[in-house]
Amino acid sequence: MNFEEKVLDSKRIYSGKIINVEKETVLLPDGKNAQREIVRHHGAVALICVTADDKMVFVKQWREPLRKITLEVPAGKIEPSEEKTPCETAKRELNEEVRMQAEKLRQIAVFYTSPGFADEKMYLYFAEGLTPVEQALPQDADEFLNVSELSLEEAEKQIAAGFICDSKTIMSVWYWKLLKLRSV
Amino acid sequence: MNFEEKVLDSKRIYSGKIINVEKETVLLPDGKNAQREIVRHHGAVALICVTADDKMVFVKQWREPLRKITLEVPAGKIEPSEEKTPCETAKRELNEEVRMQAEKLRQIAVFYTSPGFADEKMYLYFAEGLTPVEQALPQDADEFLNVSELSLEEAEKQIAAGFICDSKTIMSVWYWKLLKLRSV
Repeated sequence: MNFEEKVLDSKRIYSGKIINVEKETVLLPDGKNAQREIVRHHGAVALICVTADDKMVFVKQWREPLRKITLEVPAGKIEPSEEKTPCETAKRELNEEVRMQAEKLRQIAVFYTSPGFADEKMYLYFAEGLTPVEQALPQDADEFLNVSELSLEEAEKQIAAGFICDSKTIMSVWYWKLLKLRSV
Repeated sequence: MNFEEKVLDSKRIYSGKIINVEKETVLLPDGKNAQREIVRHHGAVALICVTADDKMVFVKQWREPLRKITLEVPAGKIEPSEEKTPCETAKRELNEEVRMQAEKLRQIAVFYTSPGFADEKMYLYFAEGLTPVEQALPQDADEFLNVSELSLEEAEKQIAAGFICDSKTIMSVWYWKLLKLRSV
């Protein structure tokens, strides 16, 4: 069966700073039409950072869409005008948010965060060989954050408590757990 | 430090079928203003289904935002008008997409999929004691899908090949792996 939907019409509903929104009319495999709402996003990166004393690095910040403070792995949006590769974005975010640099950024997974309504693609890296940066990059003017380090046990408690509450960060903790079990 | 952002103004930009979009002006902790673009979503569920012969159930479907076919765990949107709990949604989706029912739906994790710009909250369940449904519910008119079953090894190959390419599904495979290692 051919599942492909053919785009009959596409309208830009909203052009924003971080997202654009489009409304498509598509032709379904059975010959009928349907509407699709799509959020366009430039993509993002996230980083698993484990310190020499075996703790994972988390960023504490206010998330306005959720109206609460969360603990997340360091992450950020790709700036398509400035950055040629997601790896460059990851290096910048590691500097801006954690003030660290890595000997190597190993790509762990690439995934879409909400494939039903958004095209946001995320590149997840494992940062190897962390050292403090010599030159700190300026942080975003509208971003306020604290860095904290948690053991695996502490991180699992924060998942249970709901402070770690987003997919990329729970994935990162589970990956770290698999890594400790030598199963990835 | 108090990270909270105070909402000074909120405008509805778009009211859609699956998403609404809002633009907020917020007061930052340093007294400055910033704009926040927020996608509102009613939330969703996803299901880890493992068969008696130790295979995980995946749904193959066209994802218009990505313009490609993906393999994902069974999942679907909460219908707030009809469903009082995410568990009811999970039961319905399990019937609609996989034609199965579960003795028990165990909640594995609750997470936001894109906390930077969306409030979509997802409830991930592990379906225990699967049996075929007696009464199949009608599928959504605009949804075309195939069900397939993969071993852990096959699922990991599909992650590497990019057909399994969304966060909830990669999480689900990693959770299954941890479960096999008796570490969750």
